[in-house]
Amino acid sequence: MRRWNGWGDDANNFPLNKHARKFLESRVGKAKALPDADFKSALKKVPESRIDNPHPLLSTDAEDRLRHARGQSLEDWLAMREGELGPFPDAVCWPETSEDVKQLLAWAGEQNIKVIPYGGGTSVAGHIIATSSDKRPIVTIDMGRMRQLEDLDTASQIATFGAGVAGPDLEAQLKARGYTLGHYPQSWELSTLGGWIATRSSGQQSYRYGRIEQMFAGGEMETPIGTLEIPEIPANSAGQDMRELVLGSEGRLGIITKAKVRVTPKAEHESFHGVFFPNWQQGHDCLQAIGQEKIPVSMLRLSNPEETSSHMVLAGHPYLLGGLKRYLKLRGCHEGQMCVAMIGATGSKSFAKTALKQAIKQCKRFGGIYIGAPLGKKWEHSRFRSPYVRHTMWDAGFAVDTFETCVKWSNVSKTMQTMEQAVKDAAQEMGVKVQVFTHLSHVYAQGSSIYTTYIFNVAKDYPETLQRWKNFKKASSEAIVACGGTISHQHGVGVDHASYLPAEKGELGMKVMRNNIQLMDPGGIMNPGKLVADIETEVDSLAVQSLDKKKQQQIKQTA
Amino acid sequence: MRRWNGWGDDANNFPLNKHARKFLESRVGKAKALPDADFKSALKKVPESRIDNPHPLLSTDAEDRLRHARGQSLEDWLAMREGELGPFPDAVCWPETSEDVKQLLAWAGEQNIKVIPYGGGTSVAGHIIATSSDKRPIVTIDMGRMRQLEDLDTASQIATFGAGVAGPDLEAQLKARGYTLGHYPQSWELSTLGGWIATRSSGQQSYRYGRIEQMFAGGEMETPIGTLEIPEIPANSAGQDMRELVLGSEGRLGIITKAKVRVTPKAEHESFHGVFFPNWQQGHDCLQAIGQEKIPVSMLRLSNPEETSSHMVLAGHPYLLGGLKRYLKLRGCHEGQMCVAMIGATGSKSFAKTALKQAIKQCKRFGGIYIGAPLGKKWEHSRFRSPYVRHTMWDAGFAVDTFETCVKWSNVSKTMQTMEQAVKDAAQEMGVKVQVFTHLSHVYAQGSSIYTTYIFNVAKDYPETLQRWKNFKKASSEAIVACGGTISHQHGVGVDHASYLPAEKGELGMKVMRNNIQLMDPGGIMNPGKLVADIETEVDSLAVQSLDKKKQQQIKQTA
Repeated sequence: MRRWNGWGDDANNFPLNKHARKFLESRVGKAKALPDADFKSALKKVPESRIDNPHPLLSTDAEDRLRHARGQSLEDWLAMREGELGPFPDAVCWPETSEDVKQLLAWAGEQNIKVIPYGGGTSVAGHIIATSSDKRPIVTIDMGRMRQLEDLDTASQIATFGAGVAGPDLEAQLKARGYTLGHYPQSWELSTLGGWIATRSSGQQSYRYGRIEQMFAGGEMETPIGTLEIPEIPANSAGQDMRELVLGSEGRLGIITKAKVRVTPKAEHESFHGVFFPNWQQGHDCLQAIGQEKIPVSMLRLSNPEETSSHMVLAGHPYLLGGLKRYLKLRGCHEGQMCVAMIGATGSKSFAKTALKQAIKQCKRFGGIYIGAPLGKKWEHSRFRSPYVRHTMWDAGFAVDTFETCVKWSNVSKTMQTMEQAVKDAAQEMGVKVQVFTHLSHVYAQGSSIYTTYIFNVAKDYPETLQRWKNFKKASSEAIVACGGTISHQHGVGVDHASYLPAEKGELGMKVMRNNIQLMDPGGIMNPGKLVADIETEVDSLAVQSLDKKKQQQIKQTA
Repeated sequence: MRRWNGWGDDANNFPLNKHARKFLESRVGKAKALPDADFKSALKKVPESRIDNPHPLLSTDAEDRLRHARGQSLEDWLAMREGELGPFPDAVCWPETSEDVKQLLAWAGEQNIKVIPYGGGTSVAGHIIATSSDKRPIVTIDMGRMRQLEDLDTASQIATFGAGVAGPDLEAQLKARGYTLGHYPQSWELSTLGGWIATRSSGQQSYRYGRIEQMFAGGEMETPIGTLEIPEIPANSAGQDMRELVLGSEGRLGIITKAKVRVTPKAEHESFHGVFFPNWQQGHDCLQAIGQEKIPVSMLRLSNPEETSSHMVLAGHPYLLGGLKRYLKLRGCHEGQMCVAMIGATGSKSFAKTALKQAIKQCKRFGGIYIGAPLGKKWEHSRFRSPYVRHTMWDAGFAVDTFETCVKWSNVSKTMQTMEQAVKDAAQEMGVKVQVFTHLSHVYAQGSSIYTTYIFNVAKDYPETLQRWKNFKKASSEAIVACGGTISHQHGVGVDHASYLPAEKGELGMKVMRNNIQLMDPGGIMNPGKLVADIETEVDSLAVQSLDKKKQQQIKQTA
């Protein structure tokens, strides 16, 4: 069964091996877990619904409301573990048709009730939490029952789905017909197609399949002022592309009910391969070269030295890894310097083989040591495991969070260093230790995403632990803005990043977004407070921007 | 020198060979050219400027205004040839900096003067013509002096240009540094970067380099309410993508002054190759297969049987071609059935060779006869010649126009037939003959663009010739809408396609576009009447839509 206070199915557990625990303790100090609240006591704290006269599709049941109150950000996590999940939505519903959604939005508009669209509940940026910025009741619309493959145009390779379909269900329905979408974000097990579109999600194999932006071919969005229908025309020069309005709209404009996506026949061959580089620079330059030469591999990732070491310990198998390390040392790759890259090859056998061959040739040019498919197999096997490992860590008293951005190549290494340093500085200021490591997860010809993980000890209680996280979040977000990166490459904006968005979009960009929201949602009922902060928050964000300028100068001076 | 009443440099002429003339006469009947007006008499018709007190950057000189009055649509062509180019802009200016543009927009706003942004003046959809929908004076802002390569970030492969740079100038500046953009629309010789962005242009090698949407990395647009700055972040999940607001905005939101584009090192190898298919279906299926397998060639085009025959005659060299035809016949390709495809291979030598090999293997699977690079060389040599040939045709009494769309693969052949039939039906209704042929010019995994050319005799005078064109334009546009295609895949909307846009964007989509325009241009000075028709025109367009439904049913019934 799905966990009420964490990630995924509660039958899945991946205990921390003793080497990993020892390793983490050596980095961040001995940890003492915080006590978890139990379900019953958390449930008791759900207040009565403020909706007296609910629409027939609504449930005001306390458990339903509790199970829809939080996403998967570390703030959400702490709330769930403490058993303080509020504020809660006043009701939850599961529409089954576009007509249901239309009716629900009309009803919510009449009643002046706020609406939170809900996909898989996997947001790590606060997209689906109930906010108490005003006194209006809140309804969460869970799209999980709109999950059918409605049409598959095999000639055009376009599949039409109910937008609430989750990753495994979507792939299973396509696989039965011999097709795949190929969108594999870390959250794939629970996140939904509509959620991916609404947050501009990117999957692990975006190098081959594209980001969700490239997959989203058209569809339907129900808005408070009507239905936006987008035809699945492959390309056009006819004014504004309406798909781009829906993408990244984070529930502020309406609810995506139906999505047409670009699919491909299930590939004949897929494999993942490990390559070690003697140092960061060579690995970085190699991925850049592969991306810029458009070599058609299906995935490119590169861990920095600290992530490479950490993952090797956390994976266990010290004896096997010992052998690998000795071999790599002989070949000039030393621990603490070396970086592991993961390369995917997907397609027809000959296509994948050719692409892999071209990629490995490049790796060798940059000093890479190809160690073959076994490590790739291991990665593939545990590719969706990270969110589960958070449990294991938590049980041992460690809190884990990640943050990410994307910048152009001329800025990648410096931004990575700045991001990691910001977390270390924040830790030092608080007098706590932190373990930080980073990988490049999505490579483009013009640059790369940068994905940083940090691990720290929980404090003596929940409020202090939350404060630690807030400090880390602030420091990391400010570092991204100061480096000119996007506040999010793949997680979206939600509430957590909303105050940093104006730095990226500019005053006019924010006006455009607000203007669209005002048009589509004149009553202001759609997911308020997410993506585009309300006026009060924006006053703060101006302060953030000026702070950033200070920080930016600081960084320039020290560089 | 650039022609005042047609395409390109007047030193370039490509006379019609006698076989071609005979061939065309056999298809559309003997033609008699219409008399061309001379420059002096056309100039005399330019009225006095309505701007009494011009901004210091403006020229109200009659010749400048005449040379900026018209684009390259057939309607523009007829106006230029007849010497009736009005209505005219009241002044023209050539800003040299973003600050100039800012000042000009501010001045125009204060004076309530309409503004037409002007790139290369190559629009075939009426983007840059002065309209007389209201009595306000009009200024054309020619961006041609903002043409410098301002920055080249070689690590990130991003070039920053003044947006008024034209194709050859842009490529020359990049070539000096070893780079290329690779955007080659038919209009490349004259059209500009800013124009490409504003109209969502697509180049002949979009299969490799992408459409302008994929090349446009960020930049600046001056709007009546301020400057929109878009950072060159490679990818993000941070709300609405502002690049997508600028793309296809057709001068309604502001003027693009600076554009950052994704470039690549000049390829080591580039070649184009001809392949003949025994019939349309096999060629169609082969291009579909290559596109869907993501074989990394750089160009894919397929002419239908009529275009294949016509081009062979129009190219001349009957003896050489006779030999080719005999060879093809032996291999099972018969005239009237066979279709020629053109395939580009670009990249490092080994990359291009591998891609070409994969593509040719596919061609053979679909019965294609590879005839090697000579035909490709010929195509490459004359790839920007078509607009010049219009002159040759005109001088012989033939008028030429094209129209284009994009649909998904399951709809490509039927749409092509419907488009061609619509032109033939319109001709029959008018009692004139028409020669029609088509090619697929831009292949996507989900579908293809469809590009149809038609040639007809000019009538006894200009007004009747214009009426013929209007009838063809109406018939062809209605056919596209009835087939669910986009009203333009690469030419844009302008005034010619504006009434067909609501069929594609829907009521909400049109509201979104109008809402953006109202935000960015509250005074309604930016290129009014283009892209989003004004209210009166939209009433007509609703009529068009209902007409389309009738037509749609008709087509369904006959299918």
